[in-house]
Amino acid sequence: MNDTICRDTNPAMKGRQQAIGQVLIEALPYIRQFEGKTFVVKYGGAAMTEERLKNAFAQNITLLRKVGINVVVVHGGGTAITRVADAMGLETEFVHGKRVTDEKMIEVVQMTLAGKVNQDIVRLISSHGAKAVGVSGLDARTIEAVPCREASHLGRVGEVASVNTEYLDLLCQARLIPVIAPVGIDTEGNLYNINADDAASGIAIALKAEKLIYVSDVEGVQCGDKILKSVCKSEAADLIEQGIISGGMIPKSLSAYKTLDSGVRKVHLINGRLVHSLLLEIFTDSGVGTQFVVE
Amino acid sequence: MNDTICRDTNPAMKGRQQAIGQVLIEALPYIRQFEGKTFVVKYGGAAMTEERLKNAFAQNITLLRKVGINVVVVHGGGTAITRVADAMGLETEFVHGKRVTDEKMIEVVQMTLAGKVNQDIVRLISSHGAKAVGVSGLDARTIEAVPCREASHLGRVGEVASVNTEYLDLLCQARLIPVIAPVGIDTEGNLYNINADDAASGIAIALKAEKLIYVSDVEGVQCGDKILKSVCKSEAADLIEQGIISGGMIPKSLSAYKTLDSGVRKVHLINGRLVHSLLLEIFTDSGVGTQFVVE
Amino acid sequence: MNDTICRDTNPAMKGRQQAIGQVLIEALPYIRQFEGKTFVVKYGGAAMTEERLKNAFAQNITLLRKVGINVVVVHGGGTAITRVADAMGLETEFVHGKRVTDEKMIEVVQMTLAGKVNQDIVRLISSHGAKAVGVSGLDARTIEAVPCREASHLGRVGEVASVNTEYLDLLCQARLIPVIAPVGIDTEGNLYNINADDAASGIAIALKAEKLIYVSDVEGVQCGDKILKSVCKSEAADLIEQGIISGGMIPKSLSAYKTLDSGVRKVHLINGRLVHSLLLEIFTDSGVGTQFVVE
Amino acid sequence: MNDTICRDTNPAMKGRQQAIGQVLIEALPYIRQFEGKTFVVKYGGAAMTEERLKNAFAQNITLLRKVGINVVVVHGGGTAITRVADAMGLETEFVHGKRVTDEKMIEVVQMTLAGKVNQDIVRLISSHGAKAVGVSGLDARTIEAVPCREASHLGRVGEVASVNTEYLDLLCQARLIPVIAPVGIDTEGNLYNINADDAASGIAIALKAEKLIYVSDVEGVQCGDKILKSVCKSEAADLIEQGIISGGMIPKSLSAYKTLDSGVRKVHLINGRLVHSLLLEIFTDSGVGTQFVVE
Amino acid sequence: MNDTICRDTNPAMKGRQQAIGQVLIEALPYIRQFEGKTFVVKYGGAAMTEERLKNAFAQNITLLRKVGINVVVVHGGGTAITRVADAMGLETEFVHGKRVTDEKMIEVVQMTLAGKVNQDIVRLISSHGAKAVGVSGLDARTIEAVPCREASHLGRVGEVASVNTEYLDLLCQARLIPVIAPVGIDTEGNLYNINADDAASGIAIALKAEKLIYVSDVEGVQCGDKILKSVCKSEAADLIEQGIISGGMIPKSLSAYKTLDSGVRKVHLINGRLVHSLLLEIFTDSGVGTQFVVE
Amino acid sequence: MNDTICRDTNPAMKGRQQAIGQVLIEALPYIRQFEGKTFVVKYGGAAMTEERLKNAFAQNITLLRKVGINVVVVHGGGTAITRVADAMGLETEFVHGKRVTDEKMIEVVQMTLAGKVNQDIVRLISSHGAKAVGVSGLDARTIEAVPCREASHLGRVGEVASVNTEYLDLLCQARLIPVIAPVGIDTEGNLYNINADDAASGIAIALKAEKLIYVSDVEGVQCGDKILKSVCKSEAADLIEQGIISGGMIPKSLSAYKTLDSGVRKVHLINGRLVHSLLLEIFTDSGVGTQFVVE
Repeated sequence: MNDTICRDTNPAMKGRQQAIGQVLIEALPYIRQFEGKTFVVKYGGAAMTEERLKNAFAQNITLLRKVGINVVVVHGGGTAITRVADAMGLETEFVHGKRVTDEKMIEVVQMTLAGKVNQDIVRLISSHGAKAVGVSGLDARTIEAVPCREASHLGRVGEVASVNTEYLDLLCQARLIPVIAPVGIDTEGNLYNINADDAASGIAIALKAEKLIYVSDVEGVQCGDKILKSVCKSEAADLIEQGIISGGMIPKSLSAYKTLDSGVRKVHLINGRLVHSLLLEIFTDSGVGTQFVVE
Repeated sequence: MNDTICRDTNPAMKGRQQAIGQVLIEALPYIRQFEGKTFVVKYGGAAMTEERLKNAFAQNITLLRKVGINVVVVHGGGTAITRVADAMGLETEFVHGKRVTDEKMIEVVQMTLAGKVNQDIVRLISSHGAKAVGVSGLDARTIEAVPCREASHLGRVGEVASVNTEYLDLLCQARLIPVIAPVGIDTEGNLYNINADDAASGIAIALKAEKLIYVSDVEGVQCGDKILKSVCKSEAADLIEQGIISGGMIPKSLSAYKTLDSGVRKVHLINGRLVHSLLLEIFTDSGVGTQFVVE
Repeated sequence: MNDTICRDTNPAMKGRQQAIGQVLIEALPYIRQFEGKTFVVKYGGAAMTEERLKNAFAQNITLLRKVGINVVVVHGGGTAITRVADAMGLETEFVHGKRVTDEKMIEVVQMTLAGKVNQDIVRLISSHGAKAVGVSGLDARTIEAVPCREASHLGRVGEVASVNTEYLDLLCQARLIPVIAPVGIDTEGNLYNINADDAASGIAIALKAEKLIYVSDVEGVQCGDKILKSVCKSEAADLIEQGIISGGMIPKSLSAYKTLDSGVRKVHLINGRLVHSLLLEIFTDSGVGTQFVVE
Repeated sequence: MNDTICRDTNPAMKGRQQAIGQVLIEALPYIRQFEGKTFVVKYGGAAMTEERLKNAFAQNITLLRKVGINVVVVHGGGTAITRVADAMGLETEFVHGKRVTDEKMIEVVQMTLAGKVNQDIVRLISSHGAKAVGVSGLDARTIEAVPCREASHLGRVGEVASVNTEYLDLLCQARLIPVIAPVGIDTEGNLYNINADDAASGIAIALKAEKLIYVSDVEGVQCGDKILKSVCKSEAADLIEQGIISGGMIPKSLSAYKTLDSGVRKVHLINGRLVHSLLLEIFTDSGVGTQFVVE
Repeated sequence: MNDTICRDTNPAMKGRQQAIGQVLIEALPYIRQFEGKTFVVKYGGAAMTEERLKNAFAQNITLLRKVGINVVVVHGGGTAITRVADAMGLETEFVHGKRVTDEKMIEVVQMTLAGKVNQDIVRLISSHGAKAVGVSGLDARTIEAVPCREASHLGRVGEVASVNTEYLDLLCQARLIPVIAPVGIDTEGNLYNINADDAASGIAIALKAEKLIYVSDVEGVQCGDKILKSVCKSEAADLIEQGIISGGMIPKSLSAYKTLDSGVRKVHLINGRLVHSLLLEIFTDSGVGTQFVVE
Repeated sequence: MNDTICRDTNPAMKGRQQAIGQVLIEALPYIRQFEGKTFVVKYGGAAMTEERLKNAFAQNITLLRKVGINVVVVHGGGTAITRVADAMGLETEFVHGKRVTDEKMIEVVQMTLAGKVNQDIVRLISSHGAKAVGVSGLDARTIEAVPCREASHLGRVGEVASVNTEYLDLLCQARLIPVIAPVGIDTEGNLYNINADDAASGIAIALKAEKLIYVSDVEGVQCGDKILKSVCKSEAADLIEQGIISGGMIPKSLSAYKTLDSGVRKVHLINGRLVHSLLLEIFTDSGVGTQFVVE
C-alpha cells in the first residue's frame, strides 16, 4: 500500500484541510455572484512580458471564463509599436506622452497592435484551453473614434466616440474571450490610435461591466508602506488634497470615478507581478490591490 | 488610516496569497466540471447530531447548490423513530438489524421521518440560505416499494422497486434541494420503511447521478492507520480476500459496486466529523475519504 | 345479439340522452373557462373522515386537475394532533379555540400535520391516479409566519406573514397537486401552528386564485330552511344585521370578504357530505352551497 | 328571500344532483383523453336542413373545439348543386349514383359547394361563437385528385389522390374549424367533384385522426329493432354473411375498415336527428350509434 | 466545343452584363427592405381576363411571396356576378354604380365571388408554384360589415366595419397567399356585397400594410401625355384644383390619402396591361405608375 | 411639371421595362434558393488593388449578405508581405513558388496579413454598410495547421489540418461577414503561413459551403477565344489530355474537384476585372466565368 492510494490522517493534514475548506467557503459564493457578469481587464506591464507572469495571467483569465464570467481583455502595445517602427526606419516622436501618428505611423500602429500584439495574446490564452478571438476596433465598427480633442495636431490620435457592443456581446454569449486592440474608426473610415486605458474604460461602460480591472505594475494606491483597500469618491478627493494620491495616480483616480459614474460597479488596480492576483482579487474577501467604489 | 482600509504588503502575506491562489486554481475547474451534474448525499452520523457539524454540512450543501450542482439529500432516522415510539408506548424490536414494523409502527416511521427528521433538515439547510423542500417517497409516488425479500415477516419493511425521477428532476431544475425521507409505497397504496443507504443508492441510480456520497462517522476504508483514497472493483475483491476490507465494510463495498454497475460514476465514503469534508472531497485533487470507482 | 353490444332505441332512453346532453352543454364551457386557473380547496369535516366521502373528494380533485385546473389542497388536523399528543402523554389545552402550543407541542403539531395527516391525503389522492405532493409551510419557506397577534401568550400559534408562491407555482405548472400542511416558519427559523382556514385564505390570495372553496360540514349560509346561493358584500352586512348570518358564520363571512378584497374572484362554502359537491359547484350553472362575491 | 338567491335542499334535488355528478364523473376524463386529438366529422342529412338540428350540431361542434379537440368538418351538397344547375338551365344526370359532370357542371359544383353550401356552414358555426373557415380542396392544393377510376367517362368525377395536411394542421393549431368542400385539383390544374364520404375518409387518414364520425340520418347498424354499439372487423364479415349488415350499409362498413386500416382509431355512424348526438357519442361511456373498431 | 458550354467574351456581351449588373444592384436592396412587409394588391382589369397578363400577374405574385413579402390579393368580380345572375334569370340593376342586392342577389354574389372568381385566382396562382388559399370575409369573420351608409336602400350593399387580421396574419406567417373575396358579415350574421377597392383599403389599413397596390387598366395619374410618378397630399389638392386630377381619379385620390392617413406607407396605381408591372414598381428606383405618398 | 415627377410612356421605355422585368424574373428565384446558404469567396487579383474594382467587389459582397447569403471572404497578401519585409530589411526568397518562412518572416506574415491586409478589407466592406470582422486562423483556433508536407524545409509554411467552424458559424448566423487571414496554428502553438487558395478550399469544405468562388484575374477556363461555362469531372480529364486545360489551370482544376468531392456544391472561377461579376455569376442563368461541377 503506497502513498498514491493511501492518505495520512495525521493532525497536520487536518489543519491544512481546514484551511483549504475556509478558502473554498469564502470563494464559492463569488462564483454564483459573478456568473454571467462582465469583467473588462486592461492588460499591461510586467504581466505582458515575463513568461511566468504571462502564463499565470492567461491561466487566471481562462478560469474566470470557465466559471461563467464574461471576460474581455483590452491591451496596449506602445513598446512593440516603437520596435516595429524602428525596424521600418520610421522615427518615433512623443508629445506630452502621446505618439505623433502620421499616415505611415498609423499603418504601423494598426499592423502591430491588431496583427502582432493582439494575436500573441490570443495565442497565449488559447494555449491554456480557452477560446480567445482577436478584435480590433474596426471589426464590426466596434470602436467608433473621433480625433483626440487635446491632440488633433498629432495626427491619427483618437478617442472613443462610442462602442458598438453587439459584436462583443455575441462573443461573450458564445463563451469566447474577446482580446481587443485599441484602434478606432471614424465615420469617414479613418483609423485612429487610442490610449488603451481609455479604450478599456469606454468598453467597460458600454458593456455595463461589473468590474474594470487594471493589471499593471502598481500594487494599488499607496499610503506610506501600505496599500489602500478601497477608496470611495468622497475619500478620493480628501486623499488627493492630502497628497496621498499624487502624481500619475491622480488622473487614474479621476478616470476611475468617471467610469463608475457611467455605471460600472467597481474599478480595480491590481499588481500584475503578484501571481494569481486576478483570482485573489475576485475570489477572496480581502482581495489585493485597491478598488474604487462609488461610496 | 487604519487596517480595515489598508493592507500589508509584507512577505508573509504574499506567501499566504500564493497558497490561496493555488487552492483556487485547483478548485475552480471542478465547478465547471460538475455544473448541472447530480450528487446524491446520504446524510447520517454525527453530522446529523452535533450542532457545529450540522451547520458545516448545511453550509456545504448550500454552496454545492449555489455553484450549480443538483444536490439531493437522503436521510435516515432510526434513533428518532425509536424515541417517538418509546414516547407513544410502542415497543421497538430489531431482527438482524431490521426494525419489526407492524401497522402501528409504520405510522410512527412515516410521521417521524417525513414529519420530524425530514422537516428539521429542511429547516437547517434553509437557515443557510438555500431552498430545501421535504420529499417523502409517497409524494408523486417517488419511491415505489415492494416488501423486502429477506424480511417480509417483519411487516412493512420494504425495498426500492423503482424511483420516479420526474418530481426530483423538477425540483433540481428549479434549483431546489430535495430532502428525501426513505418511505415507499406499493401498488396497493401500502407504506414501507426503507433502509436509507439502499434508498440513496436507488435514487442515485435512477437520477443517473455523477456521485453518491455517504456522509457517516467512518473516515473511509481503513488500511492499518491509513485510509485508502480510491478502490476499483478488482482491487476490492483482493482487499476483501486479504481481510483489509472486513466486517460492515464488506456489504458497503458490494453495494457501492452494484451502484457503480448501474451507471453512477463514483461512490464516496466521507467522514462527517471532518468539517467541510464535502467541499474538500469535491473541490480538491486529493480529496478526503475513500472513493469507489469502476476501474 | 345481447345487450352489451346492442342498444335500445326506446323513447325512455332518448329522454335520458337529452338530459345528459343538457348536462354536457352546461358543463363544457366551464372547463375552458377555468383551464389554467387556480382553485384553493380547504379540506375538512366529514369529507376527511368517512371513507365514501374521502374517495369522492379525491376523485373530484383528480378530475379538476385532469381538466387543467391548478388545484391546491390545504388541510387542518386538530383531531389528529390531539390524538398523537394524548398517545405521547402531552396534555392538550385550548384558550378561545386556539391550542396552547409550547415547544413540545409544536413538535407534535409538525410531525402530525406534515408527517401523518398530509401524507395520508397525498396517498388518498394518489390512489385515484393524480400526482399529489406533500408540502409543509417550511418547504422552500412557503409559509412565512409571525406569532399570532391575539395569541402570542399561547406559544407557537402563528399567522401568515407572507406566502412564497414560487414553489407552489412550480408544482402547479408541472400538473402536480400540492397538499399543504399549515405550519409556518419565522425569520429566525421558529415553527408555528397556523389555523388552516387562514392559511388557505393567505395561499389563495398569494396565488391570485380564481376560487377559494371551503369543503366542510355546513351546506352554506342558511336562511330558514333554504341555502343562500350567492351573497355580495353589501348584502352580507344586511344579513348580519338581520341575524340571518349569525354565530360562527359571521367571522367566516368577514374573512371571505377580506379574501375577495385581496383579489380572489370567489369564495365558496360547500358541503363535504354531498357526494361530488366540488364538481357540482364548479360545472353546473346553479351550483351547490353559497358563494361570496364582490358584488 | 326569493328563489333566485336561495336553493332548496329537498331530497329530489339531491337525487338530481347525484345524477348530474355521475354524468360529469363520466364525461370529464374523455376531455383530457381527446384534447389535442383530431376528429373529422362528415356532416350530412337532416342535421344540415332542419333549423333546430343545425343549431344543435353547430353548438356541439363549437363545444368540441372549445374543449381542445381539433374538429374538421367535411360536407357534401348534392341537393344544392342540382338546385343551382336547375336554376341555370343545366340538366342533371346520374349514372350509378354519380353525377355526370361536364365542364359546365363542374363550374356549378365548385361555385355551389365552395361558394354557397360551405359558406353557409361557416356562417352557421360562427354564429355559435367558434371561428370557422371555409376550405376548398383547391386552397393550398389541399385535395389532390385523379379521375375516378370507375367513372372516368362521367367527366370531372374524381377521387382523392392525396391530402396535403399542412394547411389543415395550421388551421387546427390556430384553434380554427376548417369546413371543407370536397372538390379536388389534379396536377394539370383541373377541378374534380369528389364524393364527400370518400373525401372525409381521405382527410381523416391524412390527418391521422382519432375519430371519423359520419353524421347522417341512420341510427347506426341496425340489428332487428336494436342498434349495434360496436362492430370489429371480424364480426363485420359474419354480420354481412348473416345478412344483418346489408344494402347500402355494406359499402359503408367496408369503407370504414379501410379507413381504420389506414390508422384512424375509430369510425362512428351517428344519427343527426338525435339532438346532441355528437356530445353523447364522445362524452358518455355508452355512446350513441355504432362504432367500427379494429378489434 | 459548342455554344451551350462555351461563352463569348465579345464587348457586346460585356455591355449587356453591365446593364444586368445595374438592374441587380438596384433591385437587391429592395428585397431586404420589404422582407416580412405586407403588400395588399387589388387585382382587377385586363390583368384578370387576358391569359398572357393573368400569367404574368400570377408569376409576379409568386415571386413577391418567394422573396419573403406577405402578399394579400383582393379581387372584385362584377362582370362574373352579372353573368351568373343572367344565367339564373335574375335581373341586374345598378343605382349610382352600385348593384341593387336583394336576398336572392346576395346569394349569387357570395356564390360567384367566393366560389368561382376567388377559386379561379387561387388556381391560377397555384399553377405558378405558390400556395394560395381562398378567403371570404365570412371565414373567421375576417370582414365585419355594416350596411353601406349611402346605399342602405339597395339591400345587402355593405361597407367594412372592421377587419379581423388574426386569420390573415396566420396565413401570411405560414407563407400562404390569401386571396380575398370582398363579402362581409354583420353582427346578426347577414351577408353583404362590398366594393373591392374599399375592402382592399380596409384590409391594408388593418394589416398595417407597407403598400396598397391597385392593379387596373389605368397607367397612373395622367398629366397631358405623361404619368405623374409620385403625388403627395398637398400636391394632390392643387392638382385637383387645376383639373389635372379629374373625373374618377378624384375619389380614387381621396381614398388613397384616407388609406395613407390610417397608416399604410404608400398607395400605388399601376397598369395591369404592362407585363411585370408589379415587379417593376417594387424593385426599380423609377417604378411604373403613380404612387401616392404622405409627403 | 418636370421630368423628376413625370414619366414618359413612349415605346422605348416600355422596351427597357420589359428587359428589366426579365432580369428580375430571372434573378429573384436565386435569392430564395441561396438564402441561408454559405458562399466562400477567395479574394485576389486586380479586384484587390484597383479602386473601382475594390468598391464594386465590396458592394457585391454587401448585397449578397443583405439578401441572406452567408458570405465568407478569404484573402491572400503575398505582395504586401514582401513590401513589409523589404521595409524591415528582411530578404524574401521563394522556392517552387513558396516563400521561405523563418521565425522572423512568420512574424512579418502574421502582422501583415492579420494586421494590415485583413483590416483594410474589413474597412473596405464596412464602408459599404455591411458589418465585416477580421478573423485570423489563430482566433478561436479556427485554422489548425501542420507543416506543409512538401515544404517542411522552408520553415513555417503550413497546410490546413482542420477548420473549427464554430466561430465562423457564429459570425455568419449573426449576419457578420468574416474576412479570413490564412495563418494557422499547430497543436504546440506555432504559427504557419498557408496558401490562400488552399485555405479557402479547406474552409469551404468545413463550412459545407454551397459555392467556393475564386475571384482572380482569369476569366475562367479558356478554350480558344471562348470561355467554358461549366466543366464536369469526366470532361476535365479529357480537356487536360487534349491540352485545353493546361499550365497553372491543371492544379486549379484538380483542387476544384477535390473540393467538390468533399461536399461543396460548385466551384467557380470568375474574373475580378469584370464589374459586378459576383452578382452576374450568382443571379443570372448564364453566369460569367467557369464553374466546376461534379457531373
